[in-house]
Parts: sequence; C-alpha cells; structure tokens
Amino acid sequence: MTCKSPALLLLFLSITAANFAQVPKRQFEPVNFAQVTITDSFWKPTLDKVATTTLQACVYQTEVKTPRIRNFEKVARNKNEKHEGIFYDDSDVFKALEAIAYSLKNHPNTELEKKADEWIDKIAAAQLEDGYINTYYTLGRLNERWTDMSMHEDYNGGHLIEAAVAYYQVTGKRKLLDVAIRFADHFDSLFGPGKKHWVTGHQELELALVKLYNTTQNKKYLTLAYWLLEERGHKYAKGYTWTEWKDTAYAQDVVPVREQKEITGHAVRAMYLYTGVADVAALTGDEGYMKAMQTVWEDVVHRNMYITGGIGSSGGNEGFSNDYDLPNEQAYCETCASVGMVFWNQRMNLLTGNSKFIDVLERSLYNGARDGLSLGGDRFFYGNPLASDGRHFRREWFGTACCPANIARLVSSLGDYIYGFSDQGIWVNLFIGSNTTAQVGKTPVPISMETNYPWDGNIKLTLQPKTKTKFKLHLRIPGWVQGEAVPGNLFVFEDKTKAAFTLTVNGKSVAYIIENGYAVIEKDWKKGDQVELVLPMEVKRIVSRPEVKQAEGRVALQRGPLVYCVEGADNGGQAWNLILPDKTNFQTTHQKDLLEGVTTIEFEAPTVQIDADGQSVKTELKKIIAIPYYAWCNRGQNPMQVWLPRKIQDVKVNR
Amino acid sequence: MTCKSPALLLLFLSITAANFAQVPKRQFEPVNFAQVTITDSFWKPTLDKVATTTLQACVYQTEVKTPRIRNFEKVARNKNEKHEGIFYDDSDVFKALEAIAYSLKNHPNTELEKKADEWIDKIAAAQLEDGYINTYYTLGRLNERWTDMSMHEDYNGGHLIEAAVAYYQVTGKRKLLDVAIRFADHFDSLFGPGKKHWVTGHQELELALVKLYNTTQNKKYLTLAYWLLEERGHKYAKGYTWTEWKDTAYAQDVVPVREQKEITGHAVRAMYLYTGVADVAALTGDEGYMKAMQTVWEDVVHRNMYITGGIGSSGGNEGFSNDYDLPNEQAYCETCASVGMVFWNQRMNLLTGNSKFIDVLERSLYNGARDGLSLGGDRFFYGNPLASDGRHFRREWFGTACCPANIARLVSSLGDYIYGFSDQGIWVNLFIGSNTTAQVGKTPVPISMETNYPWDGNIKLTLQPKTKTKFKLHLRIPGWVQGEAVPGNLFVFEDKTKAAFTLTVNGKSVAYIIENGYAVIEKDWKKGDQVELVLPMEVKRIVSRPEVKQAEGRVALQRGPLVYCVEGADNGGQAWNLILPDKTNFQTTHQKDLLEGVTTIEFEAPTVQIDADGQSVKTELKKIIAIPYYAWCNRGQNPMQVWLPRKIQDVKVNR
Repeated sequence: MTCKSPALLLLFLSITAANFAQVPKRQFEPVNFAQVTITDSFWKPTLDKVATTTLQACVYQTEVKTPRIRNFEKVARNKNEKHEGIFYDDSDVFKALEAIAYSLKNHPNTELEKKADEWIDKIAAAQLEDGYINTYYTLGRLNERWTDMSMHEDYNGGHLIEAAVAYYQVTGKRKLLDVAIRFADHFDSLFGPGKKHWVTGHQELELALVKLYNTTQNKKYLTLAYWLLEERGHKYAKGYTWTEWKDTAYAQDVVPVREQKEITGHAVRAMYLYTGVADVAALTGDEGYMKAMQTVWEDVVHRNMYITGGIGSSGGNEGFSNDYDLPNEQAYCETCASVGMVFWNQRMNLLTGNSKFIDVLERSLYNGARDGLSLGGDRFFYGNPLASDGRHFRREWFGTACCPANIARLVSSLGDYIYGFSDQGIWVNLFIGSNTTAQVGKTPVPISMETNYPWDGNIKLTLQPKTKTKFKLHLRIPGWVQGEAVPGNLFVFEDKTKAAFTLTVNGKSVAYIIENGYAVIEKDWKKGDQVELVLPMEVKRIVSRPEVKQAEGRVALQRGPLVYCVEGADNGGQAWNLILPDKTNFQTTHQKDLLEGVTTIEFEAPTVQIDADGQSVKTELKKIIAIPYYAWCNRGQNPMQVWLPRKIQDVKVNR
Repeated sequence: MTCKSPALLLLFLSITAANFAQVPKRQFEPVNFAQVTITDSFWKPTLDKVATTTLQACVYQTEVKTPRIRNFEKVARNKNEKHEGIFYDDSDVFKALEAIAYSLKNHPNTELEKKADEWIDKIAAAQLEDGYINTYYTLGRLNERWTDMSMHEDYNGGHLIEAAVAYYQVTGKRKLLDVAIRFADHFDSLFGPGKKHWVTGHQELELALVKLYNTTQNKKYLTLAYWLLEERGHKYAKGYTWTEWKDTAYAQDVVPVREQKEITGHAVRAMYLYTGVADVAALTGDEGYMKAMQTVWEDVVHRNMYITGGIGSSGGNEGFSNDYDLPNEQAYCETCASVGMVFWNQRMNLLTGNSKFIDVLERSLYNGARDGLSLGGDRFFYGNPLASDGRHFRREWFGTACCPANIARLVSSLGDYIYGFSDQGIWVNLFIGSNTTAQVGKTPVPISMETNYPWDGNIKLTLQPKTKTKFKLHLRIPGWVQGEAVPGNLFVFEDKTKAAFTLTVNGKSVAYIIENGYAVIEKDWKKGDQVELVLPMEVKRIVSRPEVKQAEGRVALQRGPLVYCVEGADNGGQAWNLILPDKTNFQTTHQKDLLEGVTTIEFEAPTVQIDADGQSVKTELKKIIAIPYYAWCNRGQNPMQVWLPRKIQDVKVNR
C-alpha cells in the first residue's frame, strides 16, 4: 500500500466497500440524447451538416490525410514500424468514433457505420494481451509506458472509453466496449488504492471511468475515478517523468481537488477535471467536491470568462491567466474549452438544480463553441477571438486536431442538454425544437417543443401523458430575461430592467413560482396540454466590470442567447471604424438568405472616415449591420469586433 | 593552476611577462577633461547645475535619506550591526565620489571636497586588513564573500577604483587610491592567472583595472583586466552561486569575448564589458577583441539602437531583446546604458580613428543620456521612453540608484570627449565651446572653440601654437551632414542629399581631405589661426527600416545632433493627435526663455479633433511645436511622441 495518509486509506476502504449512497445526489437526470429527436430550425441543419460533412472530414483526415489509423494497423502488423504523428493522436480516432456514434442515432448511415466497425476492428487488433492500447508507446517504446505522466496515455484511454460507451449505447455493438473494459482493467491492475500512484497529465480518464461505471455498473471503475481525483495535489508526479511542463498549476495539480479555490492552468484539462469531479460527487455525495467546485466555478464565471462563454484567454498555456485579463484579438478561447464548459455546467446544473449553470452552458454553446465550426461544417477554429484585424481564418484541420471531433461530438449529442426528469417532474433547460419522452416516476410523458429560438422567443411545448398526471414542469427562465447578463457581475446589462416574459397553458395564464431560475408549474397534466412561453427578445447592451481593461469604454450587443459582432463583410470591409453611441436605436431583421439564416441587428452609428491619402478625417453616420458572433468568418478573412467603442477616442481605425 | 587550456596558459605567461607592445594601439589619445575648460552655452549651464544641484542631491540621498554611508560607519564600529539596503549600494557612494571629483576640477568647492574627504575616511575605515571592502558582506556574512558571482562585489570594487583614480587625478590625494589599490591587490591574491576562476557578474572591474594600470603603471592590473575578460564564456561560473539569474546571455557569458558576434542581455553590463575590452585591446593590440567588437557594435547600431542613441529596449532584462524590436512607450533605454554608449564609442573612435563612433556617441550624449537629467538637475529618468501617454515622470531618486550619479559623472567629465591628439595632429570630435591645450609631438597647441552648437552650426576654432607647427587638424564632419542619419541603415533620412558645409581658415577657403569622417587640414599652423566650420542645420525627416514595426508609417525629426519630439505642454496638452504629412514646411525659432533656451521646430499639421462627447471627429490644421527630445517632461507629466504618424490611420488619439 503506497497510500500514505490513514484518512485517505479509510476513504478508499469505504469506497472499495462499495457502500456508495444509493440515492443519486443529482436533483434530476438528463434525458439522454438517444431519446431526443431534434427538429429545431436552428440546430437541425447543424446536426445534419455534422453528419454529412464534418464527420466525413474527420474520417478523411483521420484515415487518409494523417497516419492516425495507420498507426493502429502498424501495431497489428507487428513489423517494427515507426509511430507517425504526435503521442496523443490516438485520441482523435476515438473522439471521431464517439461523434460518429452520436450521429448514427439521428442520422443512420450504413456506410459510416461500416467505416466505424472497420476502425474498431483495427483498434481491437492493436490492443496488447494485457489490455494496454496506445500506438505511440507500442510502436517501439513499450518499455517506457506508464513512466511519463504528461504523455497522454490516460487521456487517450479516456477517449477510448467515451467512444466505446457511445458506440455501444447507439449500436448495441460491444466490441469497442470490450476493448475499453480491458484497457480500464489493465490500468486498474497497475494503479489505484493500494497500488502505484498516477496523476493524469491531461484529465479525461476520470469522467470516462464514470461513464464506464454507468454503463457496466461495475463499481471498480467509479472507485478508480474517485481515486484518480484524490491523487491530485500531493506531488505524486514526483517519481515520474513530466516531459511537457514543470508547472503543476497547468494541470491543476497544486493542491487536492477538495482544496482548490481558483481556476488555473490549461482550460480543457480544467473543464474535464471538474466534469469528472461533478460526476463523482453526484455518485458519492462528496460535499468537499461540491464546495470546491462552487468556488472554482465562481472564479471562472465571475472573473475569467468571455462574454462569448469562451475561457482560457492565454495562448501560452492554452488556459487561464490573471483575473480579468481578457484580451480580444489575442483571446485563445479554445473551442474544446467551450465544449468543456458545456460538459461541466450541465453537471453543475444536475447537481444543484440551479439554472444559472444552464445560462452559462447556453452562452458557451451558442457562442464560444458554435463559433468553432463553420456554417459549411468543414472548417474549424481552434481559438475563437473576440476581435480580428482580418488575420484569422477557419482551417481545414490542425496538427493537434482535438477541436473538430470535439465540436462534432458535442453537436451530435446535443439532445443530452435539453430536458431533465425526476420522479417529481420535468425540466426544460434549452429551447430547441425536439420530441422526447421524459419519465416522471412511472409515467412516460411524451413532449414536443416547437420554437424558432434563438430568432424569436416563442416556445411551445405539448405534453402527452397517457393519463392525467400531477408533476412539476420546470421551464428555465434565462438569466438574460431576468436582467442578469451573466451570473455574477463580470458583464452587466446597461439597462437592468427585468424584461417581462409570458407563460400560458392552453392559452390561459397559469400560476407558477420561480425556483432556482425556473418557472415551475405544478398541476395535473393531461394529454395535449400546451404550454407557451414567450421570452422577450430585445437587443441588450452589455458593459463589463472596470477591471476588464480590454472592454473598457466598450459595449457588446446581445439578443436572446446570442452575442453579436460587427464584421467587415457586412460593413464595407470595416469593423473597427465605428462607435456605438449611448443612445442608439436598434432594429432587427431576420435575413433567411444571410449566413444560412440569421437575425441581424442594425443601427446607425458614427463612423470614422479617412481620405485615401490618410491626411484628413471626418465622422459619417452609417448603417451598421451586426451579426451573431458564431457566424463570423464564413465569408473569408475580414475584420470583426464584439466589443464596440462608445467614443471616437477608442476607435483603432488602422485595424 | 586551474587554467586548463595550454593556449590560455601561454597567453597569460606572455601577459605576466609584461611584454605588452609599448606603442599604443590607439590612433590618438583623448585630451583629459582636466585639461579642458568648458565655456559652452549649451553644456556649461548643465555642468554648473550638476555641480550645484545634482551632486547636492547625490550627497543628500547617499548620506541622509538612505543608509549608504551608514553602512560604512557600521563596519568601522564593528558592533554586529546589520547591513541596510541592497548589496550594490556601495557602488553609488563611489560613483557619487567620482562625479564630485570631476566636478571639483571645474567647480572648486571646499565644502564639497570636505564632504568627499569625510566619506573617504569612512570608506577607508571600513576596509578589512586583507584589503576586502564591501559593506553588504562585511556586515554579517563575511564567510560568504566571493561565493556568488552575481552579488556585485566585483562591480562595487570597480566603481571604488574609478572613484579613487578620479579623486587622485583631480585633488592629488592618495587616500582613496590606496584603498582601491589594496582592494585590487586583495582581488589579485585570490583570482587571476593560475589562481581561482572569477567571472564578473556585472562587468565594470575590467575597465576600472585598466584605469588603475594607467594611473599606477603597475602592469598586474592590466594583466588582471585582460584575464577577467578571458574568463568569460567558459562556464567558469558553474562552481559558484549565481543568485540573481540563470541566463548567461544576460551577462554576456555564453561564449568567449573573442567569439562574441551579437549583442545580448543587460545593456549596461554589455557597455561596461566592451569598454573594458576596447581599453585592453588598445594596450595589448588584441586583434580578436577588435574584430569581435566591430561585429557586436554593428549589431547594436544596425539593429538594436533607438534614434535617440538609447539602447536596451526591454525592461524585463534591462537590456536587449530581438533585433529591430524597439517599442516606444515601453522603451527601457536606461540612462546608464546611454552613458555606457558614450564610454564604449569613445574607445572605438580612439582605436579606429573613425568618426562614425563619435556620431553614435554624440547621438547618445545629446539625446538618450542628456534626457536622463532634468533641466533643474534634481530629477532623473531611469528609463527614457520615446513616447508617453503622460504616465512618465522624472523622479527624485531610485531604489536602485545607479543613474543619477552616472549621468552626473558623465556630464562632469564631458571634457574627455571633445579633443584628441597624437604626434601627427589634433582631433575635434564634439562641438562644445571650450579651451584646452593639445600636445602635438613636443608642441603644446592651445585651442579655443567658440560655438552656439547645437542651436546653430557655426564653429570657430582658434589655435595658438607658440611657433609655426605643421600638423593635421581633424574636424569631425558629422554623419548627419553627410546624409547618413546613423551608421548603417537602421534609420535613414528621407532626403539623402549631402548638405554642404563650409570650412575656412582665417576667412579663406582651405584645402582639406575627408578621411575617416574627418575633414583633415594639414598645414603649418601659426599662432592665432582661426578655423571656421559651418555645418548646415536643416530639419531632417527620418524614417526607419521596415523591420522596426514600432516606427512603421512614422517619421522622426532631427536638427543637428538633436532628435525632436512633440510634447503636450506646447500643443494644448496633446501629442498623439497629429500627423506629419509628407510635404510639410518647417520653421525653426530659438526661444531663449523656453526650457532654458531651445530651438523649436514649428510646422502646420492636420490634427484629429474629437468633440467633448467623443461622438464626432474632424481634422483641423494646427501649428505644432516640436522641442528637443532631451528637454521633455520638464513641465510636469504630459504626453509626448518622437515618431510621428504620417497618416491619420496611425493616430492613436486616446493617448
């Protein structure tokens, strides 16, 4: 037993005694994406694009353009061939498989499924007798395996598990799941309570092991996940090699999870860590985890998040820098980090029942994450800046290719984030046209949602319980309706008036209470009941706390959940020459032929006009068109700004 | 013998055999400041201000406000008292003494001399039996002395020697010189050929030891200086502690001096090093040193110098960053580094006889260095930025107080840089009103120079040899007269026309040749001969190489040796709202009541005018007044720019 602390020892004895609380600690459970059919006018085209285009790009890049699949083939051939690419490339294969799995549910595609099966055969053939699977180490450096915590063996394995669970859930095929189980058992044979130490160099395995536990009901995977979380913050990495970095804050390994108070380091690592922490807390009821996560979450949302829901301002560490340091042009805001924000905030919402986490999730989803994928589905942003002089462009692929498959798997599994259920009722978190059946106690309640959100605020729900059933229907009333731009006051609406929303059942007003950010209607629901929620979709001006120097004297625009930007493509090639005066009238127009259909915000604003020789300057009122942030840079390279200056002094016209 | 290389061993055997070439390797020798009486209308008031005000400030700060003198008293009392302040504080005492010494020559002041003698008594009382002197180590940590190369024991000792030599030369008093000799002998007893290794952590001792050699004619000091230079670049620091940094490039210790090609690291360290190298090269004729210095000098002047002659753009290392990285507002440009540029370029000029080094010296002296001292003589810049939004201000003193005494000692010894002499003739390097006697062979030649330079270009020299004597008179024709803004093409005049200068003797034109940048008149000179040189003082527009991004699309103004700036104080509080169009007419006016008398440059320029609410903008032609850069920030905090944008696009009006 290398575990030194008696307290920890007891903890693990109690874990291994498998006496987890049997009552889930979550307030409700999410309806699984597999039970949700998305019909939404905003998201359905994106899901289709991912199914038809993005996944094709992933397959092409993974199999043809890069040696990712070939590495698995080499292992199987066993002819002393060399590994090609980077040590974490295996994970992209797994993540693509996971995205394919989700997509197959709503977009059955026999050819794609055949391709996935073919890959799975190759992966299975590359697994060693003892369950180890990692092409980088197996091809030529097997004797070095599990010596360097920074080399992503754990991370790759975690993505293997996530892919396997997804593929099994959608197709019922066990082959990849068996590979994943053998890998997890291999890891468990080396590491865990009473065995050797291991600190994951890039967190991911923790949340994956919880998924494996949920799928297999084998408690040892949960125990292992819990143990991995407990490994952090004790300098257990010391005996190992850490090739990549020396800064333990980078991987959130400075203090134990339970003592963490501030967000630090690599943003994606942090998001995957806290998602795993929330998952383990949900199953173990670990109060220390809950408390730590609340504090860290506040540090993220109150001090370190962009208005787009993006996080990780610094490219140097792909992560967090100082509080309130949120540069716009240099914003890193990795797509994967916004995807991670969706993961973590979903878990926090399930644990607490509080809708503020969905407010943040929605912000990250509709802005920071959605921006990572081009409208065509075949171009990607790795970083998502909030301003550009036109140098930024979407790429076909990346050397480190985590983002494309990550946004693909998020979009394909979007159904996971819409509805929740418990014995007491139903939760509606996101406003996305869809059909599902939520289980309330023993009663299945078919629901359909119709909406044109986020373009308008009318949401119509139809409930179809076979028999009259009493339960609570929770409809999220977004923070932005209630006058709060984001939880905390990092960004605030200039006009803090709570906008009125209306809520009716079968056309008549209905009694509801507001609880945890939800409008809760408790009644006997009967077949065909129609609930209508109308959210006010005003254009809101947002300003930031004075500490955010990069937004000083500037205003951003938001309508519904969407953050807007001014892009050169709509404004004579310029996005840096205007100001947004204090008193500005906004019009909105839905333009179905623009950017696959967007509602634009138009306003008249003074623009700075410089003569051709650059010798004189004047102000000219021009009509400015703002578009949703996620849609920018789909018409070639051109300048863009989210934060618009209020005064001419702050115009940087040479951008 | 710890010296491992046989070649080095031979070298040092040959050094210790004292067979230095007896013929100096310099082209000529400088006339010592003690032989020069400055009468100049530009510089004399500054020398006076240093004598009356700056040195008083140095004395007050050194003795009353800070514990620098008290540390010496504590050592003498020997009562286990603690050192106060920083480990390099002793050097400020020595540097102040050196400045006092130079000043006493031209400004006899019995009270100040008494104060100096009093300090010297205290210093002498703090010297240990074995010659060691350093209050930081002696007070409580003597057993750690000479273990940490970064702790400035060598640097402090070097400044002790410089002060001692100066005080001895001016007053004839030996007490401090004897202290310095005992310290040098102490150092020599521990380190040197065949003894222990030592790499100076902050170079300074090398050049000081050459001065000690020149004063005492004891060759062991020259040997030691040479040996110290040879110690660099062999990782000899390895066995020692280097508390302050790990980067050997910082202290120019990556490769041996002879192999150095690029300027790196801390700017003042570099300047003091190369000054020492040049001094040793002059006495030993070391060709390798000469070659290395030429290459490094080109790297400084062709790629890493500001238009003001300042160097060391980066505050992080107080030194050099990447080639062509010359930020304006963030320019570090330490005053001491410009002082160091004067030292080094003087030596390079003496070694080569080429006036281009004086072109650089003059640029650093009249701009980057002079800027470090307020017109009142009692406020100082540590860094000398080329642009300010008004946040910069001159300070009374600094925690690290190297700059005030450094600029004081430079100004007080200004006479060192004006004239040169050899058996063949006389050199006039700077145009500063003064009287001296230069020795040409056996003939003393009294010279007086009258000029209103840099306000006008008329320079009148009167030569008074007792008997008719044939020699060459070398008058420096500045590069800026010959169409070259700086040696190399880092900065160039937009109009490269060589301006005409005129040269007459006794009112008649005279034959001369241009050699090494000097107009050389060879004739029989007789008593009363009057030489008149008239330099054209046009306003010149300077642009930079495109690699200097921070000067892109911008123009600087120069007249004579002076770089100009636009300061808010003369321009309605603004310095960032104007452009300098391509076709601009310049007027100049000498304003005797402005900034203690300056010639201003006036021009009409489009300015960007923003209404009070910041909602509209227009261009308005305004009369702009530019002042010499060195004179800025003498009227409180306000914005300033040296590099003026050519186009409105580059105006940053919120500065």
